[in-house]
Parts: sequence; structure tokens; C-alpha cells
Amino acid sequence: MTLHRRPLLAAPALLAAMPALAQAPAPVPQAPGWFRFRVGAFTVTTVSDGFARRNIEGLVLNAAPETVREVLAESFLPTDHYIGPYNVTFVDTGRLLIAFDAGTGGQLTPTAGRLGANMAAAGLDPARVGLVIVTHCHQDHIHGLTTAEGQAAFPNAEIAIAAEEFAWWSDAGNESRSPQGQRVNFANVARRFAPYQGRIRRFAPGTEVSPGITSVPAFGHSPGHTVFRVSDGAEQFLVLADITHRPELFARRPDYISLFDFDGAAAAASRRRVLNMAATDRIRVTGYHFPFPATGHLAREGEGYRFHRDAWG
Amino acid sequence: MTLHRRPLLAAPALLAAMPALAQAPAPVPQAPGWFRFRVGAFTVTTVSDGFARRNIEGLVLNAAPETVREVLAESFLPTDHYIGPYNVTFVDTGRLLIAFDAGTGGQLTPTAGRLGANMAAAGLDPARVGLVIVTHCHQDHIHGLTTAEGQAAFPNAEIAIAAEEFAWWSDAGNESRSPQGQRVNFANVARRFAPYQGRIRRFAPGTEVSPGITSVPAFGHSPGHTVFRVSDGAEQFLVLADITHRPELFARRPDYISLFDFDGAAAAASRRRVLNMAATDRIRVTGYHFPFPATGHLAREGEGYRFHRDAWG
Repeated sequence: MTLHRRPLLAAPALLAAMPALAQAPAPVPQAPGWFRFRVGAFTVTTVSDGFARRNIEGLVLNAAPETVREVLAESFLPTDHYIGPYNVTFVDTGRLLIAFDAGTGGQLTPTAGRLGANMAAAGLDPARVGLVIVTHCHQDHIHGLTTAEGQAAFPNAEIAIAAEEFAWWSDAGNESRSPQGQRVNFANVARRFAPYQGRIRRFAPGTEVSPGITSVPAFGHSPGHTVFRVSDGAEQFLVLADITHRPELFARRPDYISLFDFDGAAAAASRRRVLNMAATDRIRVTGYHFPFPATGHLAREGEGYRFHRDAWG
Repeated sequence: MTLHRRPLLAAPALLAAMPALAQAPAPVPQAPGWFRFRVGAFTVTTVSDGFARRNIEGLVLNAAPETVREVLAESFLPTDHYIGPYNVTFVDTGRLLIAFDAGTGGQLTPTAGRLGANMAAAGLDPARVGLVIVTHCHQDHIHGLTTAEGQAAFPNAEIAIAAEEFAWWSDAGNESRSPQGQRVNFANVARRFAPYQGRIRRFAPGTEVSPGITSVPAFGHSPGHTVFRVSDGAEQFLVLADITHRPELFARRPDYISLFDFDGAAAAASRRRVLNMAATDRIRVTGYHFPFPATGHLAREGEGYRFHRDAWG
């Protein structure tokens, strides 16, 4: 497959977030969406914020919808629509409660916004979060930094973000150099970070962000998209953010470019590099759009990788 | 691979249930183990009863432990021990709340016995269960019919069980014709069914047990082991009971005979037949020992089948 570098100005109209389609059937009440395990002495909890539902048409820029449907069907996923889950990962080091991204804040699509209720069920209080690590600035990852009224949703948290990522979206001069559908991020970054002024820490990707949390640059999906290695003692865990969207599609076909990718070719190159690392070292991973509980392992298979979701009890 | 019909009298000493090994590390508190979905207008809930932990040595009668470890590692499961989950499936038809099997009743191993707490979390009251369908009489499936004091754990329930299964374990004359490790079932069946006298219904496998619930004979794992098709409207769902133990091992290698199989060759033949049906028709399934939430689909792959666990939100 040939990778096409995506022409920045010819990008299709899109939103980083996935708009809700026509009403889905009323969901059956489901168990609270949280899942907990240890990495060394750290306690990790993945918490579901719900999901978004969108058309399959337009989702993958370099594959026909019929081909995409075939790949989805191999994993018994729906073929008439695409479900994109949202999961926020919390790491409690004992010293600090860290959130990776902030969810949708209930301000994006009616099928998401469950983070607060699921955090409560998991015994996680937003006021106890001391650090929010923002993997990148797409709306579905940062809307939840603030309430609809503009208050800080994590009132006692510092924010850490890759310098490249924050710089891009903070400079209006980059707007004309960004895909049309991502230009909404400039105003949104200003709005969502506003109540955190004075406690936004920019880090250089590749450095340690907090004890046990090391950043790994994985640019492409957004200008400064960053993933993270969480380690304590001999154990480690990777927070893969948006290195792939659903792994049943984008890990199985790592060269697929999604409509969410800022720079398709760079995103695919980062994806190949990070998936290869996770599979080679058999490191436990999570991804923001992975199916709940969103943690497991990646194994090389065929032309891509298979996600083996964690077993539960 | 050659299947060996297991000599009934030369069976290794075993228990149908899996004894706990040395203490596992203290588990981290986990979210309640229940999962809910609809099949037509029926509401199905899978509920975790916990798990048992055992040695890999002796688990598979016709494969070397090193080979078994390799298969487990392919699914990123532990290779130094084997975790056997327990899941009870509830079907609420709107008219009747049905349980498939009864769990361990907290009387088998310290890592199981969570059914009651997880049922409460799911809003399922044992007193509301009107029918317990017993798939077969191994201890881990029927201990939970009674409390430790011998009371009916489902006080208002009728029991339905395949005539062949109940007849076998109710006739002491069969004891000498049963594998050594399964002889415990004779006394246990008498004890666990005792408080249900007068409300035990024996059915012929292949017939409808309750409206929408059809039995399918799958003998071998035990003399009258039976699986079930649940259907309402155009939708259906298969309750596979012990057609395989963990699918990451026994669906991937359907010819593996486990130490829990009463008649290994018959069990493997039933396994092949039922897995083929589920995969061909792409029917949603659950298994008693499948990893929680224990529901998903089976797809043919390599020499066996891969279990694709359901996505969750």
C-alpha cells in the first residue's frame, strides 16, 4: 500500500470529534465502566467516557468503505456504523493521581459524557487529580478539561502537554496550515486551557513528565501527539493515546489513514514504530479509543497487529 | 492429532472443580462483574462468580505442558498457572428470570463466590429466579444451588436438567463407571438437588426447555452435558456451558482433552460440532469459563477457533 501524504489544505471537512448519527436504539443499562490493575506499586484505572457513533464512509481516507467493512466484520464489529469508544486512564502513584486526557466533558455527543459517573463508581474524585497529561488537543480529549460553564473540571490539577502540541494550537498563524476540520482546535484550546493558566507545564517529548511517567514522541496524528511509558519497579505499561483509533481496524491495518489524522504519512510512521515497540516487548497497553476495558497486548499478525484485550477475573 | 478415548477407570485423580493453589497476590478491588445486552426482547446478563487458579501440569491430557504454555502465551495469558473463570448467565424473558447454572456458592475456592455480590450489583435478586437450567452436574456449576447450610439458594426456582445428566449422577451403580475424580459428583448431586425435590424437571436434549430456550445435546464433557439456544424474534444467542474451558486454549485447540472431560473423545466431537455451528452461523455465544464478560463470537482460525470477546461501550 502506498502512503499518501495528506495535502493540508485539501483535507476533507471533518471534526476531530465524531458527530452522533441518527439516534441509536436505547441502550440497556450497563455495568459501570471502570477497570483496575497494578503496574508495580502504581494503581491504574481505565474509565469509560462512553463512545461516539459515526458513518463508515469517510472514516478511512485510503481504503474503500467496503474494504473497511470487511476488516470490521472480521472482529464481529458492526458494519453499518462505526463505534469509537472513549477511555480516560488514571494512574495513582500513591503520591499523585494522574489523568491521561480529560474526556468529552459531556459536551460532544449524547453517547459520551459518562466519565464523571464512572469515576465516581471507581472512587476517583476529580478534585484529587493532581496532574492531567494531555496527549494531544483534539476535542474529544480536552473538552472535559472544563465544564460547560468554563470552570476547571479538575480544580486542583496541573496540566502537562508536549511543547510542540501546545505551541501549534496556540499560534493562530498555524490555522491556515492546518486541515480544515481541525481549525476548530485553535479556539477550543484557548477555551479549555483558560482556567488552568499558570499551571500548564510544557515538556519536551522524550523526557520524564512525572516520576515513572516518560513521554515518547509520536507526532502525526496531531502536530505534537505524544504517548507515554508508565513504569514502576520491573513493570511497565504504555498509554498509546491515539496511536491508533479502534485497534480492530487501525492496528490490523496500520497504514490506514483516518480522517482524524493531521498528517497521515507521519501518523502512519509513528503508528508503525510504536506498535512495533509494544509488540516486540510484549508491553501491556491502553488506547483512548480501544474497546473497554481498553487494556491488553498487541501481537504482530498478518499485515498488522491484533489487540488481545485483558481478561477480567 | 489422535484422539484417545479416555479409559474410564484409569482416569487421573482430579476434581471437576479446580482447587486453589498457593495464595495469589491480593487482588486490586475490581469493578462489579456483570454485563448486559438484549437478545430480541430478552435481557441477558452475564455475571462473574470469580475464578479458580490451578497448575498447568495435568490440565490437558493429550498435550505437553510446554505446548499448552505456548498456546496460552499467544493470548497473553499467564504461563505459570491457569485461571479458570466462572460466569453465570441470566436471561430475563420478561415473564421469567432464568439462570444457567448456579455458580460455586462460595463453597469451592477462595477466589470464587462473588456471584451474590455481582448479582446484587446487577439488580438481580435470587428470589426472583424462576428457573435454573443446569447444563451439567460438575461441582463448580451446582455447588451454588444450595447454601453451605443446605438451603435452596434460589428459593422460588424450578430446576431443569437433561434427563441423561440427572439419571447418570443419580444412580450409584454408575459410580464405578465414572472417572475417579468425578465420583464426588454422586453425593454432591444428591446434596445440591435435595431442597428442590418436587420441582426438578428432566428434559430430553433437543427439545424446548422454556419458551425461547432450546436445548442442544453436547454429551462428553459429562454424560448429559447440554448447551442452549436462546432466541427471541430474529435474534439468537448460544449458552455453550463447558463445550470448551477457556477458549484461548480449548477453542484454539479443539482436540485438547481437559482433565475435566468425562469422556474425552465424545467431548472433543461435541466441541467440534458446536463450535462449527457457532462459527458458521456467526451466533453470539457465552461460555461458563470464558473470560468476563464472557460473551462474543467464535471465528474459524488455524486449526481451531478464535473467541472475539464483545466490545463494551
